[in-house]
Amino acid sequence: MNLGDMNWLEVQEYLVKEDRILIVLGATEQHGYLSVTTDVSIPLALANSASEATGVVVAPPMNFGISPYFLEYPGTISLRASTFLDVVEDILRSLHHQGFRHFLILNGHGGNDAARGRIVELENELKRMKVAWYSWWMEPSVTAVAEKHGLVSHHAAWIEAFPFIHSRGIPEGSKDTLTPKTLMSAKEVREYAGDGVYGGPYKVADGIMDEIYAAALKDILELLKFENPPMHLI
Amino acid sequence: MNLGDMNWLEVQEYLVKEDRILIVLGATEQHGYLSVTTDVSIPLALANSASEATGVVVAPPMNFGISPYFLEYPGTISLRASTFLDVVEDILRSLHHQGFRHFLILNGHGGNDAARGRIVELENELKRMKVAWYSWWMEPSVTAVAEKHGLVSHHAAWIEAFPFIHSRGIPEGSKDTLTPKTLMSAKEVREYAGDGVYGGPYKVADGIMDEIYAAALKDILELLKFENPPMHLI
Amino acid sequence: MNLGDMNWLEVQEYLVKEDRILIVLGATEQHGYLSVTTDVSIPLALANSASEATGVVVAPPMNFGISPYFLEYPGTISLRASTFLDVVEDILRSLHHQGFRHFLILNGHGGNDAARGRIVELENELKRMKVAWYSWWMEPSVTAVAEKHGLVSHHAAWIEAFPFIHSRGIPEGSKDTLTPKTLMSAKEVREYAGDGVYGGPYKVADGIMDEIYAAALKDILELLKFENPPMHLI
Amino acid sequence: MNLGDMNWLEVQEYLVKEDRILIVLGATEQHGYLSVTTDVSIPLALANSASEATGVVVAPPMNFGISPYFLEYPGTISLRASTFLDVVEDILRSLHHQGFRHFLILNGHGGNDAARGRIVELENELKRMKVAWYSWWMEPSVTAVAEKHGLVSHHAAWIEAFPFIHSRGIPEGSKDTLTPKTLMSAKEVREYAGDGVYGGPYKVADGIMDEIYAAALKDILELLKFENPPMHLI
Amino acid sequence: MNLGDMNWLEVQEYLVKEDRILIVLGATEQHGYLSVTTDVSIPLALANSASEATGVVVAPPMNFGISPYFLEYPGTISLRASTFLDVVEDILRSLHHQGFRHFLILNGHGGNDAARGRIVELENELKRMKVAWYSWWMEPSVTAVAEKHGLVSHHAAWIEAFPFIHSRGIPEGSKDTLTPKTLMSAKEVREYAGDGVYGGPYKVADGIMDEIYAAALKDILELLKFENPPMHLI
Amino acid sequence: MNLGDMNWLEVQEYLVKEDRILIVLGATEQHGYLSVTTDVSIPLALANSASEATGVVVAPPMNFGISPYFLEYPGTISLRASTFLDVVEDILRSLHHQGFRHFLILNGHGGNDAARGRIVELENELKRMKVAWYSWWMEPSVTAVAEKHGLVSHHAAWIEAFPFIHSRGIPEGSKDTLTPKTLMSAKEVREYAGDGVYGGPYKVADGIMDEIYAAALKDILELLKFENPPMHLI
Repeated sequence: MNLGDMNWLEVQEYLVKEDRILIVLGATEQHGYLSVTTDVSIPLALANSASEATGVVVAPPMNFGISPYFLEYPGTISLRASTFLDVVEDILRSLHHQGFRHFLILNGHGGNDAARGRIVELENELKRMKVAWYSWWMEPSVTAVAEKHGLVSHHAAWIEAFPFIHSRGIPEGSKDTLTPKTLMSAKEVREYAGDGVYGGPYKVADGIMDEIYAAALKDILELLKFENPPMHLI
Repeated sequence: MNLGDMNWLEVQEYLVKEDRILIVLGATEQHGYLSVTTDVSIPLALANSASEATGVVVAPPMNFGISPYFLEYPGTISLRASTFLDVVEDILRSLHHQGFRHFLILNGHGGNDAARGRIVELENELKRMKVAWYSWWMEPSVTAVAEKHGLVSHHAAWIEAFPFIHSRGIPEGSKDTLTPKTLMSAKEVREYAGDGVYGGPYKVADGIMDEIYAAALKDILELLKFENPPMHLI
Repeated sequence: MNLGDMNWLEVQEYLVKEDRILIVLGATEQHGYLSVTTDVSIPLALANSASEATGVVVAPPMNFGISPYFLEYPGTISLRASTFLDVVEDILRSLHHQGFRHFLILNGHGGNDAARGRIVELENELKRMKVAWYSWWMEPSVTAVAEKHGLVSHHAAWIEAFPFIHSRGIPEGSKDTLTPKTLMSAKEVREYAGDGVYGGPYKVADGIMDEIYAAALKDILELLKFENPPMHLI
Repeated sequence: MNLGDMNWLEVQEYLVKEDRILIVLGATEQHGYLSVTTDVSIPLALANSASEATGVVVAPPMNFGISPYFLEYPGTISLRASTFLDVVEDILRSLHHQGFRHFLILNGHGGNDAARGRIVELENELKRMKVAWYSWWMEPSVTAVAEKHGLVSHHAAWIEAFPFIHSRGIPEGSKDTLTPKTLMSAKEVREYAGDGVYGGPYKVADGIMDEIYAAALKDILELLKFENPPMHLI
Repeated sequence: MNLGDMNWLEVQEYLVKEDRILIVLGATEQHGYLSVTTDVSIPLALANSASEATGVVVAPPMNFGISPYFLEYPGTISLRASTFLDVVEDILRSLHHQGFRHFLILNGHGGNDAARGRIVELENELKRMKVAWYSWWMEPSVTAVAEKHGLVSHHAAWIEAFPFIHSRGIPEGSKDTLTPKTLMSAKEVREYAGDGVYGGPYKVADGIMDEIYAAALKDILELLKFENPPMHLI
Repeated sequence: MNLGDMNWLEVQEYLVKEDRILIVLGATEQHGYLSVTTDVSIPLALANSASEATGVVVAPPMNFGISPYFLEYPGTISLRASTFLDVVEDILRSLHHQGFRHFLILNGHGGNDAARGRIVELENELKRMKVAWYSWWMEPSVTAVAEKHGLVSHHAAWIEAFPFIHSRGIPEGSKDTLTPKTLMSAKEVREYAGDGVYGGPYKVADGIMDEIYAAALKDILELLKFENPPMHLI
């Protein structure tokens, strides 16, 4: 269930017996042949699946992240790092004020990791707040699936090419892996990364994608229990 | 067409012959018996209708706005004023960098008006940029329809109760109009505004809602021409 | 009485029996043929009149506001939106710390409205604080006087041409009304608005100005009672 | 002449032959038995005298400064250091944009010195900008007059007790000098400084005050020439 | 050679033939039985070794980083994420202004990674600037050495226990690995992590530490060539 | 003893019986023929001497300060005023959180004075915190030594030319004193100040330097007692 499918009275009822919420932090940025909102769509799909299974509500997604390196690719909307941290703080602070206590953040974009320090600052200030951060594509369960199939994950390549993501013109075959040694400016990245894909197969069989999705979803359902030490609130 | 239905190559093609974009600024906040994302859903619906008619692309919506006065109502997510202004600046700056030049902002929430000063600051800095700001519920064409039917608009009342908005438990009849004389804190608002509706009929006939929608859409299509003086870029 | 006519011991005495204060938020910006500090002078005059009638003290005026659109007109001093919000917060926070509780803000400039969200954020944090915001030229009592005389208000036109405002070279007659459809940059505004007046008669009879002034003052005296629900502090 | 006594057309005329402006940075804070706006009134008086002698225009004063240590004294309005720096930047940037080039800042309050670093940052960015900063009470010419009469200057004592400053209840005689060794909080200052005067005679003969005033004014008139090396713009 | 061993004339000479500089970003935070400045000392040692081998100058280290999760451990000094990003920007901007062009950042602390987005923002703005970011303990060459010896790296364990780091009371043996599933507050971390070590052997043979050091240094010397594509400046 | 020579357990032991700490705020900026880190090295030497005598611990130095006026001299690293204030706040807040209560700041650079207002803001917020600020070169005890020898202090001249500071090429004799009348931009300063020394003898006898050092150290040892009124915590 999405927060957008509820009015405030329904949210109030929800809070009587539940204090968990799923937060989607995405990005709008180049993803090669895939939709520029790939980093929103994947964690949102996972959030919705997890919500169906558990009844935990999903907040409206944050559609923009920290993507300064892709700004030369049309369709990329990048928030300054400082802006993004403020947004994340404000979302969590608002919901915490109303009684939400367990936040599972489904992050869709690596650049957004910078917000984790700010979240800990917030936890230091607010009482009884528990935040888990899940970046699906780099979690052990997911990379284990990839490894099983002899695959490695790179930006905009097969790992993000889920059937439910808009795409156009995905090439056959593989691309040589890009391994930048420096922090490149947007202009350099555009020249360096060409079509924007960072290497490996452009696409793999739907069955593998299903496994990937299932592995991530299983992690999320586990995390939603907020059970493992030190998960108790103090 | 939504930006999310395109990859960057498609956005690049789009920019060859077009430099307009529709930006939706919403809010996630109490709306009485209506969805907490009402302020996203209405301008997004209008944006999509306008996009269908013109082919102008719609950016992913900004789902959060400035709503500090509703923070005691569960489900309200309010960004600090400073955060919201930064977000709006970053969205516009990113898209302008890639060649977008005509921005029609469909604003769904009165509290977001604070961003207009920042946008002008940005226009002073960037070159050849034209931004129009449309707050559908308070524009002359829309209030004219309301007046024709003897209606006045208030927060979370009939004017926002479109059939396509999630609602539950909308009462029959009307509510006395609330006319606060001060800037109230969230605690005061909760006590003062009760169910969160600011007065007038809770709901009106679908036909009136269609007229309202049509009036707003007509305005938007007109604004999208970016024709009237001083619309030329300098 | 102005705060500047008191030393701290006198302010301390004042606070024993009174916790109200009048705050003037102005602007220094082009006003056509009128003084660039018109937006300070009018609310300050009203504040002084109200102070004479009630003994409520007037804080030193904030002489600068948010006016990015007028920066191409010499004599305009515009604070960034973020700066202005910080100033308003700091003024209120300082006075609240010392025991002031009822703040009537007499705002002289439309662009300053952006501060209202910040004020609510502050009310959410501080205890027992009541802030009313009064923008004299757009309040119902004042527009009723205008309507009675068949007049509409526009920037720098008759509505601000009080006899006590410095002016030079006010033309006879009327100007066509300006109705910008977009948020214009300072450069565009300068080209578009010419002498800086937004239309209607440049000046009207002193008697009408007296009526306008009296209507606003009456409102202010009423607001200073901080009586109407939900004016009680919680 | 004050900027407030001009409309924008007059400012435009002024800029044809002149690019100097006097900026008053004050404070609203306890001054013992003297007005809480003493730090505005003195530099503003000097600015007006200098303006009369030279025709250089005076900007509307900034009435608030950085005074966190006096916040326990009623009537003190302190801006955060960050806020004040932003204000000073915005004032200078606005006026520089319109063609002002030589800025003489008459500062009335020691705490405001923190803005000087920001001003240099601004000079590094903007072209052809010359800013002089004058804190009248600590300049050599003024302390020489004090020394001649065997006097030392302290906050809120004789040096600020000009006849044109509102005062009430100034005691006879002298107060022991306060010499705090630490940065005290507002609570400590209130306990430590009692009536808020930092020591020395509460008041001296008007003749001495005239000498002080004349010495400061002479400095200001000299500085307004912006002549001494390295005053040339590059 | 350290910048601190040069005066500005020597830096000027240096810049005639060289535009590289080594920047050390550290942290002051709990490291179990090791010095609280371990995250400064290790990258600084590497920087000095690299400087000896190449003559590239080393800037004074930034001794504080982003460590909110360790604030309950005495001796931890944590900068807010926003502060740290500003510091990194200002250091790079200053040096770039004077002609430095190739920056090799030796980062000693994982929490500091948040600055990378800001650096790319800066690269987008400034011209001809190349920044490489090296976090020694997680680079492939270093983890390969660890793997060779059957070791895994964790905070404050063997991987940081270089002989040149101050330590007291390092226990014998190993600690169970900590694998937190959430972003913990400082209070939770203190309870959870006990002595502050995150698991594995507390210490290993000096020979292994030499191999680790050598592997990192070799990487650094390679990176200092700024040779690999896309290392050319555009 | 330096904080860097302790692990957190040792800091914890220290806090059982002691709550004082020495904080060094320096700068990296041109100092004529002296090291660019002169403003770090001098207060750090004094801090270490005071630590030896008293056992009070020394925090890792903050190596960068506010030096925008020297940015045209290679080797100058200047933090924006806003950045520096944030850093000082974060350092103090972190240490206060862990139980440090008496902070003696040894400041090495005049431009850093801007942080004092921010520190008072912090004292107003935090409980039981005492901060003393010592700028060695301008304190009465030190200027008395200078006067005794007929000397006046200027930037980068004899007063900073301690034998333990790196220098190269210090000229014989004296330089005419620079007395800038305005706030100069970095470009102007470079042209105006030439070698960067602000006048007087480039160097004096070691014996005088020893006296200077001893006078400052004596002050510091006295301040470390935190004895004089109003030093008691409230």
